[in-house]
Amino acid sequence: MTVNFDSQDYLRSVDAYWRAANYLSVGQLFLMKNPLLKTELKAEDVKPKPIGHWGTIVPQNFIYAHLNRVIKKYNLNMFYIEGSGHGGQVMVSNSYLDGSYTERYPEITQDEAGMTRLFKRFSFPGGVASHAAPETPGSIHEGGELGYSLSHGVGAILDNPDVIAAVEIGDGESETGPLAASWFSDKFINPIHDGAVLPILQINGFKISNPTIVSRMSDADLTKYFEGMGWKPYFVNVHGLSHMDAHELMAKTMDKAVEDILAIQKHARETGDDSMPQWPMMVLRAPKGWTGPKFDLDGNPIENSFRAHQIPIPVDQKHMEHKDMLIDWMKSYKPEELFNEDGSPKDIVLENTVQGDQRMAMNPVTNGGINPKRLHLPDWRNYAIDFDKPGSVEKQDMAEWSKYLNEIANLNPTNFRGFGPDESKSNRLFTILDGQKRQWMEDIKEPNDEDLARSGRMIDSQLSEHQAEGWLEGYVLTGRHGFFATYEAFGRVVDSMLTQHMKWLRKAKEQYWRHDYPALNIVDTSTVFQQDHNGYTHQDPGLLTHLFEKNRPDLIHEYLPADTNSLLAVSNKAFADRECINVLVTSKQPRPQWFSKEEAQRLVENGLSYIDWASTDDHEEPDVVFASTGTEPTLETLAAIDLLHKNFPDLKIRYINVLDVMKLQSQRKNPNGLSDEEFDRLFTKNKPVIFAWHGFKPMMESIWFDRHNHNVSIHGYEENGDITTPFDMRVLNEIDRFHLAKDAVERLDLPAAGFVDEMDKLLSKHHTYIRDNGKDIPEVTEWEWKGLN
Amino acid sequence: MTVNFDSQDYLRSVDAYWRAANYLSVGQLFLMKNPLLKTELKAEDVKPKPIGHWGTIVPQNFIYAHLNRVIKKYNLNMFYIEGSGHGGQVMVSNSYLDGSYTERYPEITQDEAGMTRLFKRFSFPGGVASHAAPETPGSIHEGGELGYSLSHGVGAILDNPDVIAAVEIGDGESETGPLAASWFSDKFINPIHDGAVLPILQINGFKISNPTIVSRMSDADLTKYFEGMGWKPYFVNVHGLSHMDAHELMAKTMDKAVEDILAIQKHARETGDDSMPQWPMMVLRAPKGWTGPKFDLDGNPIENSFRAHQIPIPVDQKHMEHKDMLIDWMKSYKPEELFNEDGSPKDIVLENTVQGDQRMAMNPVTNGGINPKRLHLPDWRNYAIDFDKPGSVEKQDMAEWSKYLNEIANLNPTNFRGFGPDESKSNRLFTILDGQKRQWMEDIKEPNDEDLARSGRMIDSQLSEHQAEGWLEGYVLTGRHGFFATYEAFGRVVDSMLTQHMKWLRKAKEQYWRHDYPALNIVDTSTVFQQDHNGYTHQDPGLLTHLFEKNRPDLIHEYLPADTNSLLAVSNKAFADRECINVLVTSKQPRPQWFSKEEAQRLVENGLSYIDWASTDDHEEPDVVFASTGTEPTLETLAAIDLLHKNFPDLKIRYINVLDVMKLQSQRKNPNGLSDEEFDRLFTKNKPVIFAWHGFKPMMESIWFDRHNHNVSIHGYEENGDITTPFDMRVLNEIDRFHLAKDAVERLDLPAAGFVDEMDKLLSKHHTYIRDNGKDIPEVTEWEWKGLN
Repeated sequence: MTVNFDSQDYLRSVDAYWRAANYLSVGQLFLMKNPLLKTELKAEDVKPKPIGHWGTIVPQNFIYAHLNRVIKKYNLNMFYIEGSGHGGQVMVSNSYLDGSYTERYPEITQDEAGMTRLFKRFSFPGGVASHAAPETPGSIHEGGELGYSLSHGVGAILDNPDVIAAVEIGDGESETGPLAASWFSDKFINPIHDGAVLPILQINGFKISNPTIVSRMSDADLTKYFEGMGWKPYFVNVHGLSHMDAHELMAKTMDKAVEDILAIQKHARETGDDSMPQWPMMVLRAPKGWTGPKFDLDGNPIENSFRAHQIPIPVDQKHMEHKDMLIDWMKSYKPEELFNEDGSPKDIVLENTVQGDQRMAMNPVTNGGINPKRLHLPDWRNYAIDFDKPGSVEKQDMAEWSKYLNEIANLNPTNFRGFGPDESKSNRLFTILDGQKRQWMEDIKEPNDEDLARSGRMIDSQLSEHQAEGWLEGYVLTGRHGFFATYEAFGRVVDSMLTQHMKWLRKAKEQYWRHDYPALNIVDTSTVFQQDHNGYTHQDPGLLTHLFEKNRPDLIHEYLPADTNSLLAVSNKAFADRECINVLVTSKQPRPQWFSKEEAQRLVENGLSYIDWASTDDHEEPDVVFASTGTEPTLETLAAIDLLHKNFPDLKIRYINVLDVMKLQSQRKNPNGLSDEEFDRLFTKNKPVIFAWHGFKPMMESIWFDRHNHNVSIHGYEENGDITTPFDMRVLNEIDRFHLAKDAVERLDLPAAGFVDEMDKLLSKHHTYIRDNGKDIPEVTEWEWKGLN
Repeated sequence: MTVNFDSQDYLRSVDAYWRAANYLSVGQLFLMKNPLLKTELKAEDVKPKPIGHWGTIVPQNFIYAHLNRVIKKYNLNMFYIEGSGHGGQVMVSNSYLDGSYTERYPEITQDEAGMTRLFKRFSFPGGVASHAAPETPGSIHEGGELGYSLSHGVGAILDNPDVIAAVEIGDGESETGPLAASWFSDKFINPIHDGAVLPILQINGFKISNPTIVSRMSDADLTKYFEGMGWKPYFVNVHGLSHMDAHELMAKTMDKAVEDILAIQKHARETGDDSMPQWPMMVLRAPKGWTGPKFDLDGNPIENSFRAHQIPIPVDQKHMEHKDMLIDWMKSYKPEELFNEDGSPKDIVLENTVQGDQRMAMNPVTNGGINPKRLHLPDWRNYAIDFDKPGSVEKQDMAEWSKYLNEIANLNPTNFRGFGPDESKSNRLFTILDGQKRQWMEDIKEPNDEDLARSGRMIDSQLSEHQAEGWLEGYVLTGRHGFFATYEAFGRVVDSMLTQHMKWLRKAKEQYWRHDYPALNIVDTSTVFQQDHNGYTHQDPGLLTHLFEKNRPDLIHEYLPADTNSLLAVSNKAFADRECINVLVTSKQPRPQWFSKEEAQRLVENGLSYIDWASTDDHEEPDVVFASTGTEPTLETLAAIDLLHKNFPDLKIRYINVLDVMKLQSQRKNPNGLSDEEFDRLFTKNKPVIFAWHGFKPMMESIWFDRHNHNVSIHGYEENGDITTPFDMRVLNEIDRFHLAKDAVERLDLPAAGFVDEMDKLLSKHHTYIRDNGKDIPEVTEWEWKGLN
């Protein structure tokens, strides 16, 4: 049977479908029982505290209904992103109508009993969120924090050439920074190898209590705005139109947008012309709270006003005096035309639903991806550094790591990508840039440009941490693998995005039907103690605390490899991991290499390791324990041990390198943490411990708070940053070899006044010298480690 | 003498001035001695490690030179914001030429000796930053982290009707989210009461290693982009022009932009027409690394390429083989035409400098403001809540606080403002919204809109935390007062902005000539344990740790008032404070009121307080100490004490309310913290302490790590969020009365199995009830506090 999707008949089914979705959406806000209003509405039928949002609902249901239509008409592989912050009912209502919701939640049947449960559980304790949260079928984007809908949509369609992400963007969201910058995404979508996004800006005119900026801009100005950034805007304005006229306009206009996408892709794929297309986008002007109550009790407008934002009328279990407002409102959708006596949707509603995996709520791309593949990882040992003695060879960890990354990209040409904010070269990712190129659709002008191509595994040509992180999130949430490498300090720009991703993971894990996701890998480099040249603003290791304090060691891993081999070994673990955020703090400067392949592997397996060649305790009870994380703390710790050993050859020193910092947590907080016995065995119960820690102190203090041994001295970043040399940065924060060694002898109460004086003299000499000469005094800083034994 | 600023003669002085600035800027990168190249260049003349950025310098010096010209021609009150991330030499070189730098740093004389010192100190250990850092005269914006230049500029000109902020924006910066959203600032600038911004987008074409997005957009597309957002763009493209032609084009075009601003202001101020103007902005297309080395040693282009970003040629103390490249480059500016034999600038250079406070580097607006005034604060006691017994009255703290804010705004009509991301009504700031209105230049359509006006003390109509925070920063850095109120969880969106502001404060304090700034007040409300309706994405109290861990209690204050009176009392302190960031965690829901005016005042004075009416220890050694911060932890703690007291009337309970959490810090970290003796006296050395803490645990564990008493049980947010009732949120995180009371008896080892069972039974009853009924079980949660005594 051929359906004429352009006929008035079909549009009547679109309208019926839309009204059914609207009815369900209102019902979810207010009702716990009596969903079809078959009997007189009683207090017990109504929620004690209706909670949720109304303003965005009907325009979104309108969009969703019409997306269903074009999916059927053009046989599309499409999914939906709900950018507007609230209005979780939209994706619930629509997935309920097409049967997806019942497939995921069999207790929510398509009948009166199921509808009752559906209504009650929305935004209800123990129920489902008022956002498009992980429990919502078809969602990859919760949208509680605004700004990332388009970045997520673009991340999802990279390397998914057949997929179209229909990205609804609220006019409130369009005022955020991340969203405003994400319009530049069109500069990065390859029309041959990637899919497409169809951004649909929903201008309903109002936010929580304000008008929106774009709503007061004319169509002419919006056209300029979007055309300027390379998009082709299509406008649909339903204000003043009858519903059927609105449907007709929307259908015709959406057809044009979809046909544009298909034509762009056909042209590019048939001719190989991969120049940047002018992708379509849509602007829907519709009243906030469309089809809802018109006026509040004071006579102020609700529809088309900020007053439609949340619960627009004062009806709840204890306030039934205006229940007629609710009844009239719900009945205005004519439920008797939409639902059978038993509560199931009527055929006219079902006519506009989609079938099988083509339903947006069941699209596999939204649930771990279409045919997701595990990453094919090369043997990291092939990229490892060989040396005779620890410390005898210098390498740039990130440059070495980049060779390994390049091979991963070679082995996984369509499901591995690296992202960054214009820092990949600065971060020494040379080989993967050369080998894979950076994807960029604007003109490429060599030799002034370098390593750009229309298609490439790296995307780092927009200076926006929000975009890089948002794209990566969209990419991994759809089952692919990748990393986001950034300057350590500016990882903080996306603090809250990482929180939201962690929250998504936590809740997604609780859904039995959700597949798992590849790990999200954050690479923090250009770190605080490297102090290349960027000064105080670029110094901030606090991302470690930010993620650590959430105390979800199942979801958050923090690795601080001190050299290339341990970086490679732990990457092998991180890239293979699932459903977590890995933070790798790495070094990009030439630094001594310490750990053999075997040691690196042991560090990864155990999270931390006693290092025999740096210890003088012969596995006996030590006098003092040194421990360190990451490159510079380790370098300085080993130098301090060397100083002490030379001056106090009988001192029994133990050295422990910590790669996986959460391994230090008590098992009361982290089941994979060290037991108290193991911890005491390594760090002793009361011997002095000198801990050279890459981050801020409070995080490490909180770790030691749970342990027996409180005789620990934590050296870390103390917000004493500056523009100075890398060694001086360590001195300023007292994490240099001299302060570490001094601290040990002072805690040991050794007869070592001479030694302390000598350390102070060296520090003072350094201080004077550096300010005169602009470089570290060689006799103070140069040092060649040969190992103690 | 009248100067013809349009003459070729004058433009020749602009050119000479520009070349002088360029010469100084290159010198600062490379040289330590021999600044005028009077003798053959030797290794010792050159820096050991030239560090800094070249690419942005010359276009910025070009802009600066022409801004000088228009300041003189039109007698402007203007200052400069350097948005481009690096290129700190720009503001240094220009302020050196006009004498400002020497006034601030008398040792940097305008002669050869001074020039030597100027060159050496740049980006040198112990010297000045490679950004426009606080040590740079005329800077209010360091720009190490990109994205905020225009927000800062707009914040600075609010209520400064005579000031124009010339905001240079890098094309890299223009790709960031915050900057992209900040173009909407034009919707908020009142042409009568505020000053103006002149954004100058510097398109030099490249970032660190990539082309920039806007550089590959045509003038036509850029025109659309900016016109769409309401700006009137003026283009200057110097590619291919002779320097003199470039000057002529720039002068003519900048004249038009300035004349537009003056005409807009004249019209608005003479006619009272305060409708939204189309403000001018400029686009300068100039080569990255303009006037610098053309090709690198491999023959790749440097000028007009990403290769010009940092140090473009390999010359340093140890690499003198290409020193001719440097010499030729510096001599290309013809220093002999620019500097006298003694190194002082020649008249032709000085002709384009500005005098006195009109110099952009000396504009008082950039140094604590023009005629800054202390805030006139009403007596907070006039807004305090009176009650007979603690807990007998319920109020919404934010709603009450808003009355006080409204009076502050009345008393300070031009130097106090509130900012927010569309949440002011949701945050219950009713009275100040009604009284002061929200500034909004687009159409106002009542009754659908509310509380909007062309001029108002509140600005909250753009949904962007970046803009709200950026505007406030610009406002306080120019000597005015204000606050930014936001949902607690989404304060995290600007984590890194707060870090950068703190870094600015730290370094600004070290400049003897810098005036101090009013405090930056962050109001975190809609907090995690209030759980109004927004669910898991909206739950995050981590801003407290984020700022705390920096361990700068001189710069960071964190206040958690538990009721209206303590909120009012501490606001009085916070608003009067200087050079710090105050975080106020506040409540917006109806909550019991606890503290009398006197108690509130004592809490503010001491930071924390023993509360006698909630304690049963009669000032003797207690059996157990309870402590809490903030509204819900305090409410639950008092309820727990009540439960315990009723069940164990002989138990000696002490209760301490903590308002200023940093007061708990050891004096080793915070000189204003409690001494060990005071701490032990309050919390005892070993009695069980039950601490109900609003934030994540690690921060509080780190505080207690430093203290004797480790017998503390910290209850806080444990990332167990959900969409549920406020009470259930506390139960999920075990900070509710029942968990607190249970914890106490378990730690005390009381014979209280029955009590523990009773608590568990109540919790279990609650758990079942809430999931069936969607509300808290009254018998479990209802409770009326009358005080213990």
